[in-house]
Formats: sequence, structure tokens, C-alpha cells
Amino acid sequence: MSTPKILILGGGYGGLMTAVRLQKQLNHNEAEVTLVNKHDYHYFTTWLHEPAAGTKDPEKCRVDIESILDTNKIKFVKGTVSEIKREQKTAVLDSGEQLAYDYLVIGLGSEPETFGIQGLKEHAYSIRSINSVREIREHIEYCFAKFKNERRPELLTFIVGGAGFTGIEFVGELSDRVPELCAEFDIEPSNVKIYNIEAAPTVLPGFDPDLVNYAMDVLGRKGVTFKISTPIKECTPEGVVLADGEEIKSSTVVWTGGVRGNSIIENAGFETMRGRVKVDPYLHAPGHDDVFIVGDGALIINEEINRPYPPTAQIAIQQGENLGDNLVALVRGGSELKPFVPSLKGTVASLGKNEAIGLVGDKKIYGSTAALMKKIIDNRSLFLLGGLPLVMKKVKL
Amino acid sequence: MSTPKILILGGGYGGLMTAVRLQKQLNHNEAEVTLVNKHDYHYFTTWLHEPAAGTKDPEKCRVDIESILDTNKIKFVKGTVSEIKREQKTAVLDSGEQLAYDYLVIGLGSEPETFGIQGLKEHAYSIRSINSVREIREHIEYCFAKFKNERRPELLTFIVGGAGFTGIEFVGELSDRVPELCAEFDIEPSNVKIYNIEAAPTVLPGFDPDLVNYAMDVLGRKGVTFKISTPIKECTPEGVVLADGEEIKSSTVVWTGGVRGNSIIENAGFETMRGRVKVDPYLHAPGHDDVFIVGDGALIINEEINRPYPPTAQIAIQQGENLGDNLVALVRGGSELKPFVPSLKGTVASLGKNEAIGLVGDKKIYGSTAALMKKIIDNRSLFLLGGLPLVMKKVKL
Repeated sequence: MSTPKILILGGGYGGLMTAVRLQKQLNHNEAEVTLVNKHDYHYFTTWLHEPAAGTKDPEKCRVDIESILDTNKIKFVKGTVSEIKREQKTAVLDSGEQLAYDYLVIGLGSEPETFGIQGLKEHAYSIRSINSVREIREHIEYCFAKFKNERRPELLTFIVGGAGFTGIEFVGELSDRVPELCAEFDIEPSNVKIYNIEAAPTVLPGFDPDLVNYAMDVLGRKGVTFKISTPIKECTPEGVVLADGEEIKSSTVVWTGGVRGNSIIENAGFETMRGRVKVDPYLHAPGHDDVFIVGDGALIINEEINRPYPPTAQIAIQQGENLGDNLVALVRGGSELKPFVPSLKGTVASLGKNEAIGLVGDKKIYGSTAALMKKIIDNRSLFLLGGLPLVMKKVKL
Repeated sequence: MSTPKILILGGGYGGLMTAVRLQKQLNHNEAEVTLVNKHDYHYFTTWLHEPAAGTKDPEKCRVDIESILDTNKIKFVKGTVSEIKREQKTAVLDSGEQLAYDYLVIGLGSEPETFGIQGLKEHAYSIRSINSVREIREHIEYCFAKFKNERRPELLTFIVGGAGFTGIEFVGELSDRVPELCAEFDIEPSNVKIYNIEAAPTVLPGFDPDLVNYAMDVLGRKGVTFKISTPIKECTPEGVVLADGEEIKSSTVVWTGGVRGNSIIENAGFETMRGRVKVDPYLHAPGHDDVFIVGDGALIINEEINRPYPPTAQIAIQQGENLGDNLVALVRGGSELKPFVPSLKGTVASLGKNEAIGLVGDKKIYGSTAALMKKIIDNRSLFLLGGLPLVMKKVKL
């Protein structure tokens, strides 16, 4: 019998963690493992609000995949997946190359969910990759430089659609960056407006109201104007039109209102809900013993509240660990797989420099304590993915 | 008799040098001297190609006027001049404030000369102020970030119109910056095109052909494509149309093709040629004993070649020195004024890092020798304007 082929699509938290786990446990020739990724680097998606606002160097938010993988054990292919052919058990890259698999791991991440809001796809930025956040940062700086010459208020009006995790964390960073940009470009800070617009009746829907109030208070004092219970009706090249008819002119609309699974999954014929596949306890796509899904593409219901777990880095990493172990068992002919059980360590949202809110277990935390906890969580992800060497390179102090 | 009022409009090389010279020589109450400037800083116009390309921090190219002027002796007004009323002997600011003078010094600098080329004013950048070069720099960086996502070639096509001093120096800096930007944004350098387009049959018209060849050779090797004898017919939002019908798509057109005197001068009724006033040997506007013009607004013929001296920082500084001395003589009741005689110390054009060409006297200089000479010239201007303290702060090493 030939060596089984494990093909991992995507080098995000879930896919990369699966690869790392396989690399640690598999012996030579037990399996042929290939990781395919669009870039030759992995990036820390949960940090991207920082380089987007310009408060962190994007270089600090990515790491070469080959510095984490032992390429004697795991083959790395830089390429963009365009299609999965379930029947032929292959994935097709946009170079035309076809990669065959015995076991497939889909970790292709997410796409912005626009909920049918017109113009959002065309005119709004989203915080989704190193390339996208570099463009957001440069665009913001360009608007400041341009305002100094043209004085058009929309150049310094920033609209963030969505006040979930990413939206809140981004306005926190942006409001920290504004005073620096004003100083750099000789601009009076009162010219800058930051709006955070949310359709739900609260920011951070689902979060504890005490924490929500604390967050709104901190961000409000930093200059963020919230508009809650306010759906965006349309995004145009000039700004946004709200459901109540109000128009806000803005050169910069950043959409953080939601994500859906990568459309390659549904195009391959898997059954999805908002692009995500309701996986079984072993992360199988239903009816496919040879296909596993990790990260943003996997939908798992939290039975306690009968709602899906949010797509987080924490869960993606845990899925990678679980799946890595199960794949080792499979290639060794085992049939006993470990079910995946998420272990929620806590949730912390940054509100900018030295400010955050969070829940650790049942405990609410605020301010500098929460900010410290956030850094610990971020550094722990680094450790899980790349061990101490990665922590040393990219550590958050 | 009341204290004579000396009003200096503009804090560029000419106006600021006049003020510095007055401050050094006038005793308390001999004259009431006021300097008006749009910004509370002076900037080094001849260095602006560097921050425009992003190879130098714009902060290094400006200095607070109040750190150079002794405000016990010279009054500083931050304001934008909108009009000069010769009959009433006043200057009007756009705040509405009117400033009376007995002696007026006009050092209002230049405006881009577009030679009637359509669309240039609307769609091209020009290298003319701290504010304008910050916008150029940010625009260039934004184009790199955007290209990574959109791949449109015009985003990395840079067109510099005019291959005079500023044009050549700017493409020199830009070609130095490109490899840095490519590394920062993960872009293959072959995607970047820099065109320098000149209507005259040579770059650096009027320069020695050996120097011109050296410059074209150095810049060509750095990736600059020259198009000489090629007038630009039109500038559009999409790029330029050349006189021969060729269209080059580009998101960034920088016009360096020429300057004219500030239009306030001609609007005030002074007789001008391309906005410049042919001043007498004492820098008087013809027929006006009380009005002097320094810098880019003053036209002086070089009798040797029967052509006007180019508007340079060197000449503006010398005019300020001369005029300062003459104004001191005037307020002391003297009638013997010193005629202004330009003293040309040499001309050096930078071609980027450690490369330049120049003429010092009759001697041609090249490469690192010329680059060193350029720095000496730049540091000498600093010394003349602000003494050693300014050299220490902004020195070029």
C-alpha cells in the first residue's frame, strides 16, 4: 500500500496548527503531507486591526511558513486554491496544478459577509490579510496628507461598519493613531471623525453589558461616535447611506460586520450555512470520511446556548491540534478518533493602548489588566504555532 | 517722524534671509519689521524632492520660523497674503487683516507653470511645499499597497513631467526608493515603471552635455526611462497623452516642468513676464522705490548669456542679504544703495544616493564628489539662514 497523502489547504491558524502537529508526531514515510498557502507566510489574523490602523508594523504580524515547518517532513506549496474536486479527490490551484489527496484538510478561512448591502464589496475595505491592511493603513495616511491640501471633511471621516470584535478593536487602534497622524500632518484633531456603526441594538452583541458600557465609554472618550441599531443601507464611493436615510460622507469605509466561509467550499458542493460547513465531532464534512474542515469554514454548535461558536483563532488552533492527532491515528490504521471539544480560555477585546475588556471564565476584566491578558493570549498563540523561537521574534510586550 | 514699517511677505529663502539680515543689524526702534508667512515654519524648497520620494523625513526639511527670528525684533504673522494694494501701501491677508508698509519686500515664491497643458493643474502633483510633498509620498505608498491587491499596472507607473533640475533630482530619489517599497509591499521590482518626459531635446537643458550623458546613464541604470523631445499634450485622471499621440496610463503624474512667479504679484498690477518682475539692480519693482522683490518673483538677466538667471535658492539668499543691507541703509536715511550682483558658486544636481553631477566654476564634477559638494551647498544654506544651531538640527551627512 502506498503512503497516504494528506493535503492541507490554507496556512491560517487551523491549517498551520494541523501541519505542526503532524510534523511533531509522524515518522519518516508514514504520510506525505502537503500544505498549500497563497502566501509564503502565515499571518496573525487576530492582530490585523493594529497594522490596519498603523499602530503596528505589518512585518510583526506575519512569519515565514518555512521557518515554522520542517520542509523535510511537510511539503510546502505556494499557490492559490481555485477548486476542490471531491470525486477525483484533488485540489486545483490557479496555476492549473492538481494536487491529489487521501485526506483533505480545508482551512481556507473566510470572506467578508456583506448581508446583501449594496456597494459594500466595491467601496469598503476589509481587515482580512496583510495585503488588505497595508492598503488600509496607506489609504488613511494618504487621506490625512490630502486633507491638508484639499480640506474636504470626508477625507478625515472614518466609518467602521460593524461593532463586533474586529470593529471595536480597530476603532480602538485608530483612535490611538489619530493624534500621531494629526501631529505628523499638522492637522487640528477636531477635524477627524470616527463613526462605528452597528445594526444590532448594542456594540459587541452577546457580550456582558458592563463590559459593553466600559468599552463604549473608553472609546467615546477617545473620540469614537457610535451609531447602534443603525443598519447601513448602502455604501457608495462617497460614503454610506444609513437605513434611516442619513448620509455620511467618508473616503474610508471599513467593513467588519461579519464573515462567511470561503466560497470554494460551497462551490465544491459541500452543504454550507453562510459558507460554513456543520462538521461532525471529528471535524468531518458530513458524509466525507476523507475531508476535514478547520477554522472559519467549520461550523460547530455550542449546545449550552444553542448557537454556533464564533470563528476565533483560539478554536481554530484547538481544531488543528485535535485534527493533527486524529490524522496520525488514521494513517497508523487506527479507527478510534478523539472528538473535538472546544476549550474556551476566555475572550478579551482590545480597546487600544493599555485598554481592553474581557471575560476569563466568569470573571470580567477591564483596563490594563485586560490589556495584559490580551497580550498573554496573543503570545500563547505564537507559542502554540511556532514555539519559543516564534514568541521571541514576534512577542507582544 | 514715525518708525518706518518694513513688511516682508513670505518666509522662503529670500524673505527669511532679508529678515535675518535686518535682525542682525537694526537697533531697537529703528524700524518696525514684520514677516508674514503662510506657515509657522520655513521649508527648504531645494530639498523637497527627497520627502516627495519618501527618502527623507519632511520634518528634516523645515524649521520653525520663530527658532530663527528674534521675535523681540521682528514681528511674525502667520497668515496667507491674498492681495497687495500698491496705492494704499498695504497687504491684505485672507483673514481680512490689512498690514501697512513703508517698505514692502515681496518673497512670495512661485507657482507651477503649466504652459497651457490641459489637465495638468487638476491631475498632476507638484513638488512645491511640505504639504504637497507629503501628499505625493503618501500617494506613492498607497499606490504600492493598492497594486498588491488590484494588480493594475498604472498604479506602479510613475510619470515625471519635466527633466529640469527638480525632475531629475526627483526621479533620482524615486528610483532609490522603489527597491525599498517593493520589499515592504512584497512586489517584484519589474512591475515599476518610471518615465521622465521632457519637451526639450535634452534633459537638464542648458547643462553641459558630458554631465547630461552621465546623468542619463546613472538614472537609466536605476530604471528611469527618458522620453526627450516629447511634449505632454494632456494630463487626464488616467495618465498622460503625449504630443505624438501615445498614451501612458499612470496613477501618479508629477509636474516639474517649470514655475512662474506668484500670481499675487501680477494681480497687484506689477508688470510681469511669466509672473516674474524684471527688477532693477536694487531689486525694486520698476517705478516703485518702496517695493522690492526677492526670490522666484524677481527676474534678473544674466548679461553674459542674455538669459534670465534661473530662480534658485542660492540667488534668493544672496538677494536677501543684499536687500537687508540696503533696507538698513534706507531706514538710516542713506541714499547709497548697493546693487545686487549674483555670485554663482556652482550648480549641483543630485541623482539620488551618492550620485550627482555639477559644475563648480568651469570644473565638471561627477558621482560621489558631486554628491558631497551638493551636501556642502545644502548645509551652507542652512548656515546662512540659521547659523550653526540650524546646521546642527538639520545637517545633511
